[in-house]
Amino acid sequence: MKELSKLMGYRPDIKLVDATLRDGGLVNDFYFTDEFVKKLYQTNIAAGVDYMELGYKASRAMFDEDKFGKWKFCKEDDIRQIVGENDTDLKLAVMADVGRCDYKKDIIDRSESAIDLIRVATYINTIPAAVDVIEDAANKGYEISCNIMAISNTQESDIKVALDVLGQTPVDVFYIVDSNGALFPEQIARIADLFLEFAEKYGKKVGIHAHNNQQMAFANTVEAVGDGVDWLDGTYSGMGRGAGNCAMELLLGFLRNPKYNLYPAIRFVESQMKKLIEEGTVWGYDLQYLITGMMNQHPRTAIQFTKENRKDYSEFYKEVATQI
Amino acid sequence: MKELSKLMGYRPDIKLVDATLRDGGLVNDFYFTDEFVKKLYQTNIAAGVDYMELGYKASRAMFDEDKFGKWKFCKEDDIRQIVGENDTDLKLAVMADVGRCDYKKDIIDRSESAIDLIRVATYINTIPAAVDVIEDAANKGYEISCNIMAISNTQESDIKVALDVLGQTPVDVFYIVDSNGALFPEQIARIADLFLEFAEKYGKKVGIHAHNNQQMAFANTVEAVGDGVDWLDGTYSGMGRGAGNCAMELLLGFLRNPKYNLYPAIRFVESQMKKLIEEGTVWGYDLQYLITGMMNQHPRTAIQFTKENRKDYSEFYKEVATQI
Repeated sequence: MKELSKLMGYRPDIKLVDATLRDGGLVNDFYFTDEFVKKLYQTNIAAGVDYMELGYKASRAMFDEDKFGKWKFCKEDDIRQIVGENDTDLKLAVMADVGRCDYKKDIIDRSESAIDLIRVATYINTIPAAVDVIEDAANKGYEISCNIMAISNTQESDIKVALDVLGQTPVDVFYIVDSNGALFPEQIARIADLFLEFAEKYGKKVGIHAHNNQQMAFANTVEAVGDGVDWLDGTYSGMGRGAGNCAMELLLGFLRNPKYNLYPAIRFVESQMKKLIEEGTVWGYDLQYLITGMMNQHPRTAIQFTKENRKDYSEFYKEVATQI
Repeated sequence: MKELSKLMGYRPDIKLVDATLRDGGLVNDFYFTDEFVKKLYQTNIAAGVDYMELGYKASRAMFDEDKFGKWKFCKEDDIRQIVGENDTDLKLAVMADVGRCDYKKDIIDRSESAIDLIRVATYINTIPAAVDVIEDAANKGYEISCNIMAISNTQESDIKVALDVLGQTPVDVFYIVDSNGALFPEQIARIADLFLEFAEKYGKKVGIHAHNNQQMAFANTVEAVGDGVDWLDGTYSGMGRGAGNCAMELLLGFLRNPKYNLYPAIRFVESQMKKLIEEGTVWGYDLQYLITGMMNQHPRTAIQFTKENRKDYSEFYKEVATQI
């Protein structure tokens, strides 16, 4: 049984990462208004959030800039328009998706950028490519995390090899990413244990990015905190792909470090997130995500079901169940 | 760390209790159509659910029958109209709220009733009155659970006294009820441990009824399963007072006993629960419930906020925070 002191006290090492623009951008093709982004930035500062992920550094050779909002590309000028010199305690992050980012060209030296942290997203089979992005980012002076996606589809023996390789790079944080929203707290405890073993060996930290397909995003994050995971991703109102993420407001209500403040988050949800929902932006737990999560599948079929405004959940269940 | 076998295997002792009509009835004053109730009954049978709670046995001296649907009173004739002789594996339950139930008169002998289980709901301060209801129900031949409400507001030393008293009655199941939706899995583990200690001493079982104020209803129920709790409450689409309950479809997707079937639950949610939502019946997680849950308060202020269709969450936060 875990120590209750872990619930009542706090570890100063905990870092909160707001991923609203990045994971939420997958819901609305990154079309956020400047007003929204500015208020989000101010909210994160007021709430004591440690990092704000602005979006992706997506390859403009692969993705048409006319078909996405600017936070898919996170150009320096666009960032500066929101944050200026960012003379605050809030650090800024972008995601570099392995294979979909021209990092050598698009990621400039940290000394010239407002960005502090490069989040390298990779599947287990592209670890060598991830290492190249990590080394490039390290040479440019950034803090770096490596987010190993779809961990629930990955065997422990492969995870061990990957962490051993990543341990020898300049990466700062290993991230557990439950892309499928398939995991239960007991499994998180085991995966965290594995990640922490290599993190301790190589002097790294561990983070978690959870999805809410089975209403476990917050519970899995709380489990991870108790296990010694320090970096926690959240998004306001849980906005994110498919069933969405761990809600930042739940995390802010849960964490006991007095530097965190819930009130600005409530204000932001009230004034901005509820508006997005009213305007018809759709994300969050529903039956189709339960089904793909339970089957440990990528949510893409469930997202398609949602986009087509289908309501025949039982047909979808049969489609998904017979795919296996 | 818990055994993963608890996730992959199953305990035949697990009992699933559908509380949709009873806790969901608190949302719509028990006005369910007969068609809805019949389909719910058939769904529970097809899904392998063990018990269906039909509603309350509320005192007709205290509550006006014209102001509530029939499932607040669960008269024998109304039950029979749905279930006939109930010649099925599904057992039927009603809730007797201590102080709000004329149990001596309204609960007839089990031999003449379709009901199998009396669920006695009590706060910690009305345990002696609960004992009287329990003894009455035992004399009439029923299975009996005792649901200790608002457990998060109750000190362990008082819980111990209550369980010691209840252990000496003919009650079959002690229920942990997180009325405020305030608890985290680490706390559930401790409370379950306490309940199980007395359950083992007196040969009783333990159950859990969770609320979703902090998106922990399912996670807390999963935690309880791992701790040895056997009786699990769920409601379709999590329908229940305020933030609602643990969703039955999540439980059916999670439990590994082959007697449980998810598909009928998906069909029911698709055809019935989604319709209720479309028609404007409102329940489920939202900021106001996070706030009362986090503060370990009864959700009545949050329910009022919802009923008044208020959207000023930050004002509500201030109201609640200054009440303490």
